[in-house]
Amino acid sequence: MKALVGIVMGSDSDLPVMQAAADMLIELGIPYELTIVSAHRTPARLMKYAAGATVRGLKVIIAGAGGAAHLPGMIASVTTLPVIGVPIKSSNSIDGWDSILSILQMPNGIPVATVALNGAKNAGILAASIIGAFQPDISEKLTGYKKKMEDEVIGKASALKGKGQPNQFD
Amino acid sequence: MKALVGIVMGSDSDLPVMQAAADMLIELGIPYELTIVSAHRTPARLMKYAAGATVRGLKVIIAGAGGAAHLPGMIASVTTLPVIGVPIKSSNSIDGWDSILSILQMPNGIPVATVALNGAKNAGILAASIIGAFQPDISEKLTGYKKKMEDEVIGKASALKGKGQPNQFD
Amino acid sequence: MKALVGIVMGSDSDLPVMQAAADMLIELGIPYELTIVSAHRTPARLMKYAAGATVRGLKVIIAGAGGAAHLPGMIASVTTLPVIGVPIKSSNSIDGWDSILSILQMPNGIPVATVALNGAKNAGILAASIIGAFQPDISEKLTGYKKKMEDEVIGKASALKGKGQPNQFD
Amino acid sequence: MKALVGIVMGSDSDLPVMQAAADMLIELGIPYELTIVSAHRTPARLMKYAAGATVRGLKVIIAGAGGAAHLPGMIASVTTLPVIGVPIKSSNSIDGWDSILSILQMPNGIPVATVALNGAKNAGILAASIIGAFQPDISEKLTGYKKKMEDEVIGKASALKGKGQPNQFD
Amino acid sequence: MKALVGIVMGSDSDLPVMQAAADMLIELGIPYELTIVSAHRTPARLMKYAAGATVRGLKVIIAGAGGAAHLPGMIASVTTLPVIGVPIKSSNSIDGWDSILSILQMPNGIPVATVALNGAKNAGILAASIIGAFQPDISEKLTGYKKKMEDEVIGKASALKGKGQPNQFD
Amino acid sequence: MKALVGIVMGSDSDLPVMQAAADMLIELGIPYELTIVSAHRTPARLMKYAAGATVRGLKVIIAGAGGAAHLPGMIASVTTLPVIGVPIKSSNSIDGWDSILSILQMPNGIPVATVALNGAKNAGILAASIIGAFQPDISEKLTGYKKKMEDEVIGKASALKGKGQPNQFD
Amino acid sequence: MKALVGIVMGSDSDLPVMQAAADMLIELGIPYELTIVSAHRTPARLMKYAAGATVRGLKVIIAGAGGAAHLPGMIASVTTLPVIGVPIKSSNSIDGWDSILSILQMPNGIPVATVALNGAKNAGILAASIIGAFQPDISEKLTGYKKKMEDEVIGKASALKGKGQPNQFD
Amino acid sequence: MKALVGIVMGSDSDLPVMQAAADMLIELGIPYELTIVSAHRTPARLMKYAAGATVRGLKVIIAGAGGAAHLPGMIASVTTLPVIGVPIKSSNSIDGWDSILSILQMPNGIPVATVALNGAKNAGILAASIIGAFQPDISEKLTGYKKKMEDEVIGKASALKGKGQPNQFD
Repeated sequence: MKALVGIVMGSDSDLPVMQAAADMLIELGIPYELTIVSAHRTPARLMKYAAGATVRGLKVIIAGAGGAAHLPGMIASVTTLPVIGVPIKSSNSIDGWDSILSILQMPNGIPVATVALNGAKNAGILAASIIGAFQPDISEKLTGYKKKMEDEVIGKASALKGKGQPNQFD
Repeated sequence: MKALVGIVMGSDSDLPVMQAAADMLIELGIPYELTIVSAHRTPARLMKYAAGATVRGLKVIIAGAGGAAHLPGMIASVTTLPVIGVPIKSSNSIDGWDSILSILQMPNGIPVATVALNGAKNAGILAASIIGAFQPDISEKLTGYKKKMEDEVIGKASALKGKGQPNQFD
Repeated sequence: MKALVGIVMGSDSDLPVMQAAADMLIELGIPYELTIVSAHRTPARLMKYAAGATVRGLKVIIAGAGGAAHLPGMIASVTTLPVIGVPIKSSNSIDGWDSILSILQMPNGIPVATVALNGAKNAGILAASIIGAFQPDISEKLTGYKKKMEDEVIGKASALKGKGQPNQFD
Repeated sequence: MKALVGIVMGSDSDLPVMQAAADMLIELGIPYELTIVSAHRTPARLMKYAAGATVRGLKVIIAGAGGAAHLPGMIASVTTLPVIGVPIKSSNSIDGWDSILSILQMPNGIPVATVALNGAKNAGILAASIIGAFQPDISEKLTGYKKKMEDEVIGKASALKGKGQPNQFD
Repeated sequence: MKALVGIVMGSDSDLPVMQAAADMLIELGIPYELTIVSAHRTPARLMKYAAGATVRGLKVIIAGAGGAAHLPGMIASVTTLPVIGVPIKSSNSIDGWDSILSILQMPNGIPVATVALNGAKNAGILAASIIGAFQPDISEKLTGYKKKMEDEVIGKASALKGKGQPNQFD
Repeated sequence: MKALVGIVMGSDSDLPVMQAAADMLIELGIPYELTIVSAHRTPARLMKYAAGATVRGLKVIIAGAGGAAHLPGMIASVTTLPVIGVPIKSSNSIDGWDSILSILQMPNGIPVATVALNGAKNAGILAASIIGAFQPDISEKLTGYKKKMEDEVIGKASALKGKGQPNQFD
Repeated sequence: MKALVGIVMGSDSDLPVMQAAADMLIELGIPYELTIVSAHRTPARLMKYAAGATVRGLKVIIAGAGGAAHLPGMIASVTTLPVIGVPIKSSNSIDGWDSILSILQMPNGIPVATVALNGAKNAGILAASIIGAFQPDISEKLTGYKKKMEDEVIGKASALKGKGQPNQFD
Repeated sequence: MKALVGIVMGSDSDLPVMQAAADMLIELGIPYELTIVSAHRTPARLMKYAAGATVRGLKVIIAGAGGAAHLPGMIASVTTLPVIGVPIKSSNSIDGWDSILSILQMPNGIPVATVALNGAKNAGILAASIIGAFQPDISEKLTGYKKKMEDEVIGKASALKGKGQPNQFD
């Protein structure tokens, strides 16, 4: 099955964070691909990856990087597909501030859809919501996912009450 | 023509910033709607706006807000459509840090696609790239827009050379 | 006994922090209730909780949340009761800055009484001081609590002297 | 009429900001008093002000200060009344960060109800909401104020539509 | 022997940091006293401590505190003695920023001589340098201390060379 | 008359800020000297200035600098006199953060008594308080200065009452 | 004459800042070239510029950019020449923090020699010092430049004394 | 063999970070020397080290320091050689911000080539790139190093595919 979402990251040390994006797409039944593309160590590979993304059938690209994180922005400079940037709090990052600012603060003309620090799971959901805007089956799965989250909260509220926390609301 | 993109903001004082999103959509020929929805002053209106967005045909929602900016995230809590958040450096904002962090740092499950501070123009382009991933005519317009930006840079480089700046590259 | 203070939090992972608010209220003999309400996962539950708070007899609401923390502000958008916000340094927070700014920087018209990062104990005391302004028995208990804190400091100063620290003041 | 709210500030240069708190109380019909008390220039005056507040009939104290802002916290160290702190972005403040942190980050035992930077208007509303929790006439006025804010947003949305902004929602 | 330096801190939990100031004074042979004075828990004790400092013979006061750290500034508001403030990175501090800013950013008229975060050792040296400006025996000891530091660096440089690090300078 | 305080700054562009230190010393009758010493442009001059300070009779050195501000710390590395650092928000500074941190965060062994951003006036007062700890005539002048500040606050409070601000305290 | 230094910037709006680098090189007699290369608008031009830099005779590249500033780092990813990055406080930058962090925090393997915010003049001097390490004539000019700076400071100190500032040092 | 690069640091506690610079130079076959020079503990040694650097044959100086880090800038104030500054996140640093700002924000006239926080490895590579601009054998080694980094990324991408990660690009 052809991948609709491409997940790339600057280093395999980012995989523990970025796997959450892949897991979310698996849960929602959206085919994806995942590989390593480094803006600084493999600039030519980056250009090739981004230039061919539309032709290979991708609808969204998720790019994660940390520190002076140029990967999401440089991919966005080449493709017209929506690029979701995941700032990673890597070992060389200053509490994540560098990762966030170097992904978020793109100049006019080349946006990157930035999610929270280490927010790979949300990157997967955002990719799904983009596809879901045009594919009702995915949109329905997201509705189900939202319902499940709601039920979990209510379940936990109920459990707290069961453990003796005073609750005159539920 | 039915709007594909909904643009909302917390106050009409945000319009000078947010108009850039609308202008970009006009330039790219994408129908949109624009109104004021305040998370804090009109919570019921927010719920109604977000809950009906899919049925009314929207594909993307762009929400701009400043300070403790809850509008994008609260809309995202209700709809499954992709929500683009524009942090606004409003008069009550601390250099924009509050606007950025309260839009970007959404918890797992409810992403907001955050763009740069005051990046309404990029929000318009990002909305177009989302639609363009599924509508080739929009994708082509974005390719044209990218080409135009490239030509402008080369034109400016040429102009600098014309004004006597030493340039042995071009 | 009818609860005077409602304590809510976005997730049960916030309970270890927020329990300190409840403990303080227990110590001061103020009836409370405690449950989970998520702004992003259960927006309808949030609206219902806040809308019914006055009728159910609450005098103060304490709301704790982390990251892009919208819970206190959204409750304040619905009720006229005083809302105390507790910024939580949760695992997805950037050292607590996002939690603080997204609770503190509310726009004109909808205040949240923000306490220190992870300051749930102080939220409990603040709730008591609000009630105590109108119920002398609670005010007296707070006076006693203040006295106890003072005595503890003097006791510790005395203990340090006893351990040989030079002290020509006491 | 006896003042229910005491408004204090460290310097008359803070009055342009703090007057908004007084104006809000006037609008809501709540008697107040307003004067200058400096933690650093008049520590004895501060102690006397705070120690007598309850006896003089105050229910809430609003204290505004900038820079290393010790006024709200030192008042809270003496009285058991709720103290609302307004961080002021004064000329000697570093973008307001010092004002915010030195008011917000109070230690366990002595809370200050902190509002947004320069948020004196919200301090007035918060004081009203505290009183309103025990005086229904004030609570009703706050409900009216909330309604007015909502109407203003809807009016502005309508005005934007009237000026030709596309709006398929209203 | 009469104490020349008074060391105070807000809580005995600050002692592990503040002991370094005492140790430095012991090393330099300067009599001191050390106790607990809390701005927020014992405001009256603070006033008494600061008001009597000159009469009791103190020449310098060292005050350490964390979070919304009001102790150094409030002591400086009462006494004309030089007050050295030590910002402490206590458990309730946001990486020390609150401690630093609420001690450093004192308004015109009431300075606090602020040292580095957790810089109690330097507070001790600074107190000694103040006394040493008027007592040559202390000044000489500081000269000796400076010489010892220099010798240690040169000794370590020599040791590195001995371990085989290339060094064509020494 | 021999100078007791030396005021130095890195550039004459810092004079508008640093003059406030000199003015304060004039007001308190303390002889001083003032000149330009640049750590980076005149390192040899810096070494010479600091090395001769004690011999020339100085008791305190006040050093102001902005950006990567090395002047106060480098002077402190040479002399045993107390060095007061004034972080200046110069045109090349990032809102003053660089100035503050590069003066405040001195390593163990070489303290700088740091005052608030642009706090040259407080540097003058701090120098006076250091001298006043050993010269009662200066200490008395500082007591008078404190009294004057207190009277000014009370005068302003009275003026506000005169203008109609409600005041049931005074 | 063949250019030894290449100066590039992302937009002609950066020229007012970056011209200072060119002016410095002119003053020191070092041939340079200057043009516009945008990482995001002309990624192919960037790759071509960087790939050909060594062959065209450049010894150093100076790259200025603001916001999410990827230009210096991406050039460094392609060439082995030293790349000097100038963070620019452009209109879309958050006080320059994004510019600094996205240039400075490069990952292991691909350094960028970062200078101060808007420090284009220093970028020119740093380029000269790099060339001067291998060309004694340039090194001598830098020695002269350093001497001139020193003389200017001493001249200004003398002027201040002439205007009546007390100075017992010179 | 005469050292081309001098590596200095303020304390032997910085060696675990700074050794990476030496290791990189060893890998690239560039002779270096390494020792301890403290700006604050051994100012005279600093002056001597910097003043003799050119004569002793150095082409580049790498200086690492943390906190109020004055070492790189003070060396640059004396020599005309390029100085690379390594901000170190030492135990007394505030998350590295002080180290970065006090090295990066040098005034006009005296640049320091700043690399990332703890970026000693990159300091070694930058020194090599400076030398490589004039010595083709070093430049070739850097090209080889870049190729090796690229191969490693491609190798890791291949390994991920081998482990079952979907990859339709390679």
